[in-house]
Parts: sequence; structure tokens; C-alpha cells
Amino acid sequence: MAQVTTTNGGFLGHVQDMLNTHPGKPTYDRALLLECIEACFDCAQACVSCADACIGERDPAKLTACIRLNNDCADICEATGKIQSRQTALDRNVVRAVIAACATICASCAEECERHASQFEHCRVCAEACRACERSCKKVLAA
Amino acid sequence: MAQVTTTNGGFLGHVQDMLNTHPGKPTYDRALLLECIEACFDCAQACVSCADACIGERDPAKLTACIRLNNDCADICEATGKIQSRQTALDRNVVRAVIAACATICASCAEECERHASQFEHCRVCAEACRACERSCKKVLAA
Amino acid sequence: MAQVTTTNGGFLGHVQDMLNTHPGKPTYDRALLLECIEACFDCAQACVSCADACIGERDPAKLTACIRLNNDCADICEATGKIQSRQTALDRNVVRAVIAACATICASCAEECERHASQFEHCRVCAEACRACERSCKKVLAA
Amino acid sequence: MAQVTTTNGGFLGHVQDMLNTHPGKPTYDRALLLECIEACFDCAQACVSCADACIGERDPAKLTACIRLNNDCADICEATGKIQSRQTALDRNVVRAVIAACATICASCAEECERHASQFEHCRVCAEACRACERSCKKVLAA
Repeated sequence: MAQVTTTNGGFLGHVQDMLNTHPGKPTYDRALLLECIEACFDCAQACVSCADACIGERDPAKLTACIRLNNDCADICEATGKIQSRQTALDRNVVRAVIAACATICASCAEECERHASQFEHCRVCAEACRACERSCKKVLAA
Repeated sequence: MAQVTTTNGGFLGHVQDMLNTHPGKPTYDRALLLECIEACFDCAQACVSCADACIGERDPAKLTACIRLNNDCADICEATGKIQSRQTALDRNVVRAVIAACATICASCAEECERHASQFEHCRVCAEACRACERSCKKVLAA
Repeated sequence: MAQVTTTNGGFLGHVQDMLNTHPGKPTYDRALLLECIEACFDCAQACVSCADACIGERDPAKLTACIRLNNDCADICEATGKIQSRQTALDRNVVRAVIAACATICASCAEECERHASQFEHCRVCAEACRACERSCKKVLAA
Repeated sequence: MAQVTTTNGGFLGHVQDMLNTHPGKPTYDRALLLECIEACFDCAQACVSCADACIGERDPAKLTACIRLNNDCADICEATGKIQSRQTALDRNVVRAVIAACATICASCAEECERHASQFEHCRVCAEACRACERSCKKVLAA
């Protein structure tokens, strides 16, 4: 077995190590794929956290649209992150359909979070994670 | 509070009860929505189980495409089932994008499972669950 | 291949068909396992729906503990339902640890939902699903 | 609103930013919590990827125990990562039960992956992610 140089670990390091030690070859450019897997898990975590932070604010009733989109966005980003983490017997059509849906939801969630960004810093951070994921998904689709 | 008549429980009964006791009104026809939520969780479970059954067969190497699609399909059906379970502050565009992606993946997974249906009964059952979910998603999109 | 008689489908029918067509033998009693897989997916769906219904109520700030427990309970029930759907190369210790944690969370979520059951019917239904899942997990652990 | 200094983003940066901008105070030490949230998502991703890599190897039939544990470990780590990402109305008993189960599964999955670590580099990397998550969960439980 050819020796593979691995990173020092942590989330991003391990994603990279897993890609480099996989027996299959990624269909997409490896750097793009790495970025998009990270962006999906990043956005999923931020959305779970933002929904919870919104619920913890004094008047969550004003944030229902944000909470709802956060929850939906977390679910789709989680699925997209896992699907892109698989390289074996990839069905290009399937993966692209998921990534396209993910980009759509991330854009909507970002837009909603941006409306509250000046009032709630967690919405500002979450919008940033959503935009990064949207951009990354679109780059993968354009590749 | 108006009394709501509830079912005798179980998966399908509780999905129905939750829809009927929700403070919001579903955007889609309630019967269609109920059917589609059930179909998504049904397909997610069948795909998790089929991937595992394939791995337990004597020669899983012949079933890699099936295992891969099962895993992806489970992830997207789970997300779609959860997203359709929410009625508050629904973003129609977001929900439709997810359901459309779900229909695409279910069709691909069904096709792959159907190839092995005569040899592996779990693939035949899983294909059935995937086709039911595909049909249900398409009905919701057409509504 | 021995012919297996299958059900008429739907969520519960397919869970049963998948169990019956799996190449492995379930470690637990098949009827118990079927009941517990259904209870886990049922409770996951009810909790996702109840969290969303709570957010849609006039004063969600009063329901933060319920929303939080619903979200946590949905996550653990989903994981437990998927883990119990797998029969290949089962690690008894692992599966039992997950089921035990699931019973704990279901009990806490049920207790919280029961506090609001007289005011919110969705909390009453959700508590019912949580209690059913708690009981079913405990039955599997005692088997 | 007090200005919060935020990071340059990326997965770990955003997890930290979300913790720092949350209206609630984390029950656990913030550095420990940050480490454990990262470790859970890291381990979930590594396990999804390792299961898929195992299926892509020439003889996946020899890796069924590894694939099974990878799948279970991914599910529980995902749930644990999301649950720890929430700070509102935390039920300490619930969170601890989940983290304890997560530590158990991570240990079992690490042990299995370590058996194949000299032959499959992806198993070596995955074992590393599992051990890191096990350690981090135990540190949170001991805090």
C-alpha cells in the first residue's frame, strides 16, 4: 500500500485524510469537494445552533421564519454533506440534484438570516455559513 | 380549544394526529401530505435496511451501486420527511426543491434495486418503497 | 430462494417485509424489534412536528423547554430507529447503549410534553408517541 | 448589543462564533464544548466516509463489522453533535445520556477500525477520529 501523508486531524484535516485514503477517485476536483463537504457540515451545525439561539431569544415569535428555514437548511445540508462524503459508485445525476436543492435552501435561509443580522449576531454568523455553502454548492455544480 | 378526534396511534396514526392538531394549516392537501410524509419515512427506513441487508449478502461487492444509492436515498428521504412534517412559516420554493430532489433520487434507487429484485427480496421490497415515495413526491409537486 | 410472503406495504408493512427478507437473523425477538423500529420513527416524526407546532403557537417563548426536548428526542429516535433497522454484524453492547439513551430522552420529552397536554393537543399526541417509544425501548432492553 | 469578535469562519470558526453569539450560556466549559461538537461532526463525517470506502474495497465482505459500526457511529455522532450545538433550556440528564452512549459507540468503532488500520489507511484515519470523539465525550462527562 502506498503511504499517504495525512494531516494533523481536526474536522477539516480528517475530511481531507478520508478523501485521500479512499480507494475510489472523486469525480469532482478534490479541493472543491473538500471545501463543499466542509461547507455543508459547517452550515448544518450553524443552522441547528441558530434555530436554538432564536428560540432562546426574548421574543422567538418574531423569528419563526428564521427558525423554520434553519431547521430545513440543517436537514438538507446534513444530507448533502454525507452524500458528498461518499465516493463509491457515485450516481452523478443524484448527487447534482441534491447539491442543487441544497444551494436553493441555503440561499433562502441566508436571505432570512440576513434580515436579522444587525440585531442578532448568531443570525449574521449563520447567514455567513449559509452563503459559503450556497457558493460552494454552485461551484461544484459549475465544475 | 376545539376538541380534535385523534387516531389509535402507531406511526401513521400519529402523523395524522400531529397534522390535525398543528396550529397552522398545511399548504398542501392534507391527505397528500400525510401520504408523502409516510412515504418518505417508509423509504428512509427501507433504504437503511436494504443497504444493511446487501452488506450481509455473500457477495456485497456485486451490490456496491445498490448500497450507495440506498444510503443516499435514505439521507434525502429522511430530510424530506422531516421538512414536510413542518407547517410553520413554510417556504414553498424550498420545500418544492427538496421534494423534487427526493423524487429524482427515489427513482434512481428504485431502478437499481429493481435490477436485483428477482435475486434479493429485500431489494424488491425496497424498490417498492422507493417507487411509492417517488410517486407521492410527484403528486405533491403536481398539486 | 425461499419465497417470503410480504405485506401490503405502507410504513409498518415495509418495515416488517424488510425484517423478513433480510439475510441475517435479528438478535431480538422479531415482533419486539418491529414494534421498536416503528416506535422510534413514529416518535422522531412526532417530535419534529411538535417542535414546529410549538414554534407556530402564539407564545412560543413559554414552550422553549418543550421545543428543545422535542429536537433532541427527534435526533436520538432517528438514530435509534436506523440503528435497529440494521441486522448485519450487530454489536449488542452498542445497540443497547443507544436504546437505553433513547429511553431516557423519550421519558424526559414525554414528561415535558405532558405538562402542556391539556393546553396543546399536539403536545398530548407527542407525549403519547414518546411514551410508546420509551416503553418499547425498555421492553427491548429487558428481552 | 455588545459587539462580539468573530473568527474567520470555516467549520471550527463558525462553531465557535455560534457558541459566542448564543443568547444562552453553555452549561459546560466553552472550550470543552467546542472541542466536543467538532469531534462529533468530525467522527460522523469520517464514519460515513469510512463505511463508503470499505464498500469500495475489493473484498467488502471482510469488512462487514467495520461498515456496520461505522454506520451506527455516524448516526449517534451526528445526533450528539446536534444536541450539543443547542444551549437553550438544556436538560443535563438527557445530554449526558446521549454523550455517554456516544462515547461507548465511538470506542467500539475505533477498536474495530484499528483492526484494519495497517491494511486500510481510511480505517486508520477513522479510528483516529473515533478515539478523539470518545476522549472528548469522556472529558465532557468528567467536567
